[in-house]
Formats: sequence, structure tokens, C-alpha cells
Amino acid sequence: MAKFSWKIKSSSTKSKARTGCITTPHGKIETPAFIFCATKGALKSFTTIEAKKINTQIILSNTYHLMLHPGSKLIANHGGLHNFMNWDGPMLTDSGGFQIFSLGHGSVANEIKGKKTQYLRDKSLLKINEEGALFKSYLNGKNYLLTPEKSIQVQRDLGADLILVFDECTPFNVEKKYTEKSMKRSHRWAKRSINMFNSKLNYSPCYGSSGEQCLYGIVQGGIYEDLRDESIDFNLNEIKVFGIAIGGSLGSNKEEMYNVVNYTSKKLGEKHPIHLLGIGDPIDIWSLVKQGIDTFDCVSPTRLARHGSALIKNKIGKININNAEYENSSKPIDKSCNCHTCKNYSLSYIHYLLKAKEFTALYLITLHNIFFMNELMEFVRVSIKKDQLEEAEIEWYSKS
Amino acid sequence: MAKFSWKIKSSSTKSKARTGCITTPHGKIETPAFIFCATKGALKSFTTIEAKKINTQIILSNTYHLMLHPGSKLIANHGGLHNFMNWDGPMLTDSGGFQIFSLGHGSVANEIKGKKTQYLRDKSLLKINEEGALFKSYLNGKNYLLTPEKSIQVQRDLGADLILVFDECTPFNVEKKYTEKSMKRSHRWAKRSINMFNSKLNYSPCYGSSGEQCLYGIVQGGIYEDLRDESIDFNLNEIKVFGIAIGGSLGSNKEEMYNVVNYTSKKLGEKHPIHLLGIGDPIDIWSLVKQGIDTFDCVSPTRLARHGSALIKNKIGKININNAEYENSSKPIDKSCNCHTCKNYSLSYIHYLLKAKEFTALYLITLHNIFFMNELMEFVRVSIKKDQLEEAEIEWYSKS
Repeated sequence: MAKFSWKIKSSSTKSKARTGCITTPHGKIETPAFIFCATKGALKSFTTIEAKKINTQIILSNTYHLMLHPGSKLIANHGGLHNFMNWDGPMLTDSGGFQIFSLGHGSVANEIKGKKTQYLRDKSLLKINEEGALFKSYLNGKNYLLTPEKSIQVQRDLGADLILVFDECTPFNVEKKYTEKSMKRSHRWAKRSINMFNSKLNYSPCYGSSGEQCLYGIVQGGIYEDLRDESIDFNLNEIKVFGIAIGGSLGSNKEEMYNVVNYTSKKLGEKHPIHLLGIGDPIDIWSLVKQGIDTFDCVSPTRLARHGSALIKNKIGKININNAEYENSSKPIDKSCNCHTCKNYSLSYIHYLLKAKEFTALYLITLHNIFFMNELMEFVRVSIKKDQLEEAEIEWYSKS
Repeated sequence: MAKFSWKIKSSSTKSKARTGCITTPHGKIETPAFIFCATKGALKSFTTIEAKKINTQIILSNTYHLMLHPGSKLIANHGGLHNFMNWDGPMLTDSGGFQIFSLGHGSVANEIKGKKTQYLRDKSLLKINEEGALFKSYLNGKNYLLTPEKSIQVQRDLGADLILVFDECTPFNVEKKYTEKSMKRSHRWAKRSINMFNSKLNYSPCYGSSGEQCLYGIVQGGIYEDLRDESIDFNLNEIKVFGIAIGGSLGSNKEEMYNVVNYTSKKLGEKHPIHLLGIGDPIDIWSLVKQGIDTFDCVSPTRLARHGSALIKNKIGKININNAEYENSSKPIDKSCNCHTCKNYSLSYIHYLLKAKEFTALYLITLHNIFFMNELMEFVRVSIKKDQLEEAEIEWYSKS
């Protein structure tokens, strides 16, 4: 673990906001940081080298997608995911659990973010038991069993710097009894993940070339404070992990999400970098760094771009460039933005490209959205260092 | 016309190959040059600034597509197409004729390139008469009349440096009688185009900002030598144009195409830069520069990329990266290529991205194909200057 370290560099006097630095074999991550989702090993219409040029610190790829296609062994044979996708910076992989349970009924992601939808486990998730989760591939219909051991083996093959223990991500509307049962099983799965991680038998071909890896535990417990307490205690005292992620259900609306994060993060202390799984709209960033969150991941910057939406500095947070109001606008997306897109292309041009279904539109908006998030996080970090986070938030929204 | 000039810089002693330079208000074009198709005002998945970085000299956009959407007035109001798409280099627009007649039955493009298909004018082309061509928009079903005057007005609005007279592009399998009738009408249309071009009433808002424009005439006549002679005489002696394009039907196979180009180009002399419309596969470039062709345009580099094919230095000229043989290949597309894609990404990764339908694949292959064509043209120019074109062709194919 010598190649990894975590250090808090400065703290706010008005909130739990803090800056820090996670050191990995592929470089440092200045926190608070945003982790961009290269779900299937690509940043949608964008390249890893372009992303690095615009100050992207760390990307995330998904164990679930990559184990199904192209398969972790193929990636291991190419020296790991860093080499395969030519990303030489820090990388995180999730455990695959979230996707199995999310794609299983198609609504976990929405539920976590507070959108009430019917909880229906669809046929792609066939069975969960002590062993693991049996599911049907969305690609070829074949059955796969994902266990803690298998998840860690795949993550070893992929070779990301930061990897996650295998867990079940419970939706918000299951009973407390199920949330508790699931949490306890996820704790047992965490121990099995760690055992597998420590087993020298399972080092993969790329392990040597991509350096050491380190594990994040996951705090479960849904919206129930006593369960969160139990899971916090488990992660802090019963297992030894480098980082801690806040997972599971964060409630059915933003207020519950903030409550769960606040309750959980204040008990997690300073020993570990704290990651919040799957949340990262710009407007949330301001609130959640004040809760002591160090890293965020969210598909929104790239997903919004694919749907024609660009991030901007107001409380709504985005504009849909498909809208007719932009047809004749010679302005950039954001006049205060220094990205390649805003410096060179008008809303009118991008609106036209979207309507004409030209791929260049996706590239230009993706570039802006990634640049925007990196600029936001840098602005947040500088503000915390100056202990002026609250003033910075007001300034941010007055920029555009 | 002071801002435009054409100069031959060197000539081969073994063929009619020559290097030259076309000067425009937006910069110089070293010839022989390849003109990339930004059909709808975008280089498919790529940006104009990226294209410039990899030595792209000149791009082409299509009057037909842009007049229908977003409309030439909108583009004029943004200062012309150079400003709208942020391309500050030389640009050519076609007259719109080719698309009307091509999309009219969907096979002109294939016929020109020697693929025999049934000649059927479909309902989108409603009528051709002395006035112009009446067609139905592929976007909204509305009827449009494109005339020489309208084509020039639209091209004035777009503001490209090099613009074309309006013509009918006859397919190869019409009778000689129709080819002759069409040619004579196209000559009358050329005169009307020039009159319109010279009419000060029709200068568009962007005309001032984007500098002067200059006209290319088009040699018609299909595969018939006497008709080609008549059209050559018309373009050289009856009208005054800056450049001359070889258009119309080039026959039903490559041999006929080479014969038509050879017959026509040798009579066109040195006074004008000679453009060959719609032809530009790498393998054709070597033969056609020997016929004295100065500029080429073809959709193939970007279109091939969209279908997963990359240009390579052999007689077949391309590989389809979708093929299973590339699934595990850690090699680049072309080990002798210095493009960003070949220096950073393996065939295996690009193959995977294509299968996973990740847009990044299109970006990476488009980048390679544009880089490849620019490298090829530079290699050809240097070889002509050294008077070693024949040796260079052999060397080119031994590179990869």
C-alpha cells in the first residue's frame, strides 16, 4: 500500500469542507474531485488524451459492462485498462453490483436520485443469495454469476488504482428489514472481497504493470440511521480499507439524500478519502463538499451532452441546446468559459449540428461539460483553501 | 480577383503531374491537394480546429444541404460559413446540382464511380427545364426551385472562397443526345451563374467579411470526346473563370474514368487549377495526379470512418476494423503512421469501441483517415518536386 496515500491539506472553518490529495501509482488526485464515467472504457465521443488536456484527474469504468464485453481477460492481455484505453492517470472501477441491481429493474439509479418509480426486479437479475448475484447478460442472454471473488478478480484484471468491494445496492422503497439483511450480507461480501484481494493467487497479468491497487469499502444502511451507524462501524473498525464510499439508497428525494450524506459523512472522520457513489450534479457539489465529500462520480456531464444539454453556471445548471431559442444565437454556451467549444463555436452552430444529427455536436458539448466540471472542482478547491467556499458559491453563479 | 492566384511551381518530366499553389483570401492551398467534405458544415465527429492541426488545407461544403438546413441566410447572418463553423482556411462550395441529380435517383454517385445501377429519377427531382431544377426537400417535402441565380446567391451567402457554376450532372447511361442537350443547357447555366456572380446587387452580408470569391467552371460531355472538346472550348474560351472542374459522367468503370480524365485534363493546360469532382480514393490519387489533376474531393475518408474502415498503405487501401481478426490485435491501424490514433490506440481497442457502439471509435478513425490523406498528398507533392513520383508510389506501398 506504499504507493497510496491520503492527506487532508486544508479544512473550512464554516463547514466540513476540506481539500486533500489521494496519491496513486498513476498520479495524484487533488480533492474535492469529480470522477468522469468512461462506463465502457471510453468517454463517449471523446478521447482520454483530450480529457487529460482539459485537466481531468481521474476516470471511472464499470466492471459490469467490461466483464461482459470485451471481457476482462482481453483487457488484461493488453496490459490492463490503463493501457487498453490509453489513460495514464488515476482510475476507479466499481464492483459491478450497482449495475446488476440497477439494470435488474432499471430504476435504482432514479430511486437513488430521489425519483419515485416502481421497484420491479426484472428478469435480468435472476437470483441473489449468499454466494452472489446471478444475472442474465444484456448482450447475449447468457447467465453470469457475480460473486465478491469474481468482482475482485475482474477488477484485478482491469487494474484500476481504486477498486470497490462487491455490494448489493438496495433501492429506497424496500422494507427496513430487507435493507438490514442486505447490509449484513454486503458486509460479509466486503470481507470476502478483501480476502480475495489479499490472495496472491489472484494477481492478474496486468497487476504488475499497472502498479498496486487499493480497496474502498461501502457504507450501506439506506435511510436508517441505526443501520448507517452499524455500517460505519463495520467499515471503520472491522475491515481495513483505503477509502470509504457512501452507497446504498440515499432516500427518495434530495432532502433525504443530504440527510443521509450528512449523517454518514460526519462520522467517517479524516482517516479515509470519502467517495459519494453516483451523485454529482453541479448544484449538488456545492452542498456536498460542505458535508466532507472528497470525490464524486456521475454520468451526467457525458450523458447530458449526448442529449444536447450543456452545463452552465446558474441554479438550473444546464441548457438544452436543442431548444429553438438557440437557433440564431451567435453567443457561446457560456461567455465566461474558456473551453475550446465556447471559445470557437456558437450556440447557433451547435443547435444546427444537433438538428442535423452531426456527431461533432456531441464532441463539442462533451468537451464543454468535462471542462466545466473540472473548472468547477478547481474553483471549489481554491475556495476551500482560502476558506471562502460560501462566497465562492455566490461568485460562481454570478459568472455567466 | 486580386486576392486569388494560381501558380504552377514544378512539373514532372515523366507525366503531366505538377505542383502548384492556389492563393485565396483564407490562405494558400499547396497542390495536388485533397479537399475534405464537410457536407453539412461539419467534418462528422471531428472539429475544424482539429482538422487544421493535422494539416488539412481546404474543406468543401454542400450548397444543397445547407440551403435546406439551416438555410443560407442564417449562415450569412453569422458572417458566413467560415465564421459559422469556425474554419479559417480556404473553402469550396459546390453548386448544389450534383446532389439534386444524385439524390434524385440515388445512383449518380455510384454511376460516376463506375458502378452500374439502374438510372431512375425518383420523385425528389420533379422537373428540369431551362429555368433550373425543381425538387422536393428530403427534410420536409417542400418543393424548391434551384436555378443558376439561386445557386450563386446561396454560395454568396455561404461565402466560400472557391464556388462552382450551376450544372446538371448527367449519369453515364443516358443517351449521347441527352448528354449533349444537358451539356449545352449547363453551358447556358454557367453563363447565367457568371452574370449573377458579377451582379453587385447580390452581394451577401458575409461577402465583405469573408473576402472575395472566385468561380470554377465545369467541363461536361460525359464519355464522348467530341462533347468534351466542345465543353473544354466553352470553359477555356467562352467564359472567364478562375478554375476548371471536370464534372459530368466519367463512365461506367475505372478505365473509362481514367480515359475521360486523361482526355480532358491534357487539353486544359496550365492557366487554371484543375479540380476533379467527387473522386479521391488513395489508389486513384497516384494515377490522377499524373493526369495533371490539382485538387480532389471525396467523402471517402470520413464516410469510411463512420463504417469502421481505416485507410492504409496498400493496394486495397483500407481495412475494416469491425473484422474479428482485429479483436486481439495490440497493433495500431498503421505502424508507420504518426497520427494521434496510431500513436495511442490499438486495433483491439478501436474494434471493441465499434462493437460497443462508442462514438469515440468514429472520432479516432476519422482522425486517422484525414491525417492519412494529408500525409499522402504531402508525400505526392514532395515527390513531384523531386521528379520522383513513380519511385514514391512504390515506396508508399512498402511503408506499412
